[in-house]
Amino acid sequence: MIGRLNHVAIAVPDLEAATAQYRDTLGAQVGPPQDEPDHGVTVVFITLPNTKIELLQPLGDDSPIAGFLAKNPSGGIHHICYEVSDIRAARDRLKAQGARVLGTGEPKIGAHGKPVLFLHPKDFAGTLVELEQA
Amino acid sequence: MIGRLNHVAIAVPDLEAATAQYRDTLGAQVGPPQDEPDHGVTVVFITLPNTKIELLQPLGDDSPIAGFLAKNPSGGIHHICYEVSDIRAARDRLKAQGARVLGTGEPKIGAHGKPVLFLHPKDFAGTLVELEQA
Repeated sequence: MIGRLNHVAIAVPDLEAATAQYRDTLGAQVGPPQDEPDHGVTVVFITLPNTKIELLQPLGDDSPIAGFLAKNPSGGIHHICYEVSDIRAARDRLKAQGARVLGTGEPKIGAHGKPVLFLHPKDFAGTLVELEQA
Repeated sequence: MIGRLNHVAIAVPDLEAATAQYRDTLGAQVGPPQDEPDHGVTVVFITLPNTKIELLQPLGDDSPIAGFLAKNPSGGIHHICYEVSDIRAARDRLKAQGARVLGTGEPKIGAHGKPVLFLHPKDFAGTLVELEQA
């Protein structure tokens, strides 16, 4: 069911510093910071030959990554995102298998403008999993 | 400098359960468990179209992931691995930029039979980064 690894998202306390680490120290191709007010983050996309890394810094007072950074002040990997071809079919399969879909269970439009869902970390070895309809 | 994302490594307390989650619930292509006694882990490779996920379970009494699982009993993402074409050149560039290379600084032969190095998480937004010579 799952297809490509769409991205690995890393929550960072200092986006400028993390961007410099990837651009200057690791020599990666790094984009400009983009505010995503609907998602409570400012994001920098790092383009690798086969996938993307997304550096996320909280934006606004109610950021979904604020709690993670409170627990992990240096930052850390926040979630991984797998592509699926049909997100509602994926959700129905997951629920039938007993996996918990976060929120209402209805896909939302994610930061890339595509339908996404998040799955409960306890069902996937402590890893927050995002599914994105590719 | 960095190239492809070679893999994302997820430390898990129960390899059989995590394997079933990826195979049955997420419908991914999952390999057989492989003991890597030299690296203190048993690993299951999950093949995605563009990269790999590696599920790691401690093997033996001195596993390098035992401490991580003590802190994260449900499991979690342990490290990400980027490919480089020349690992010694990569190391020298990193050290010149002030990044800390773990261990002696000499590449070791990793679980894939290729030279690897690990970089200090504090220098990369709390993320343990492995470099593998591709």
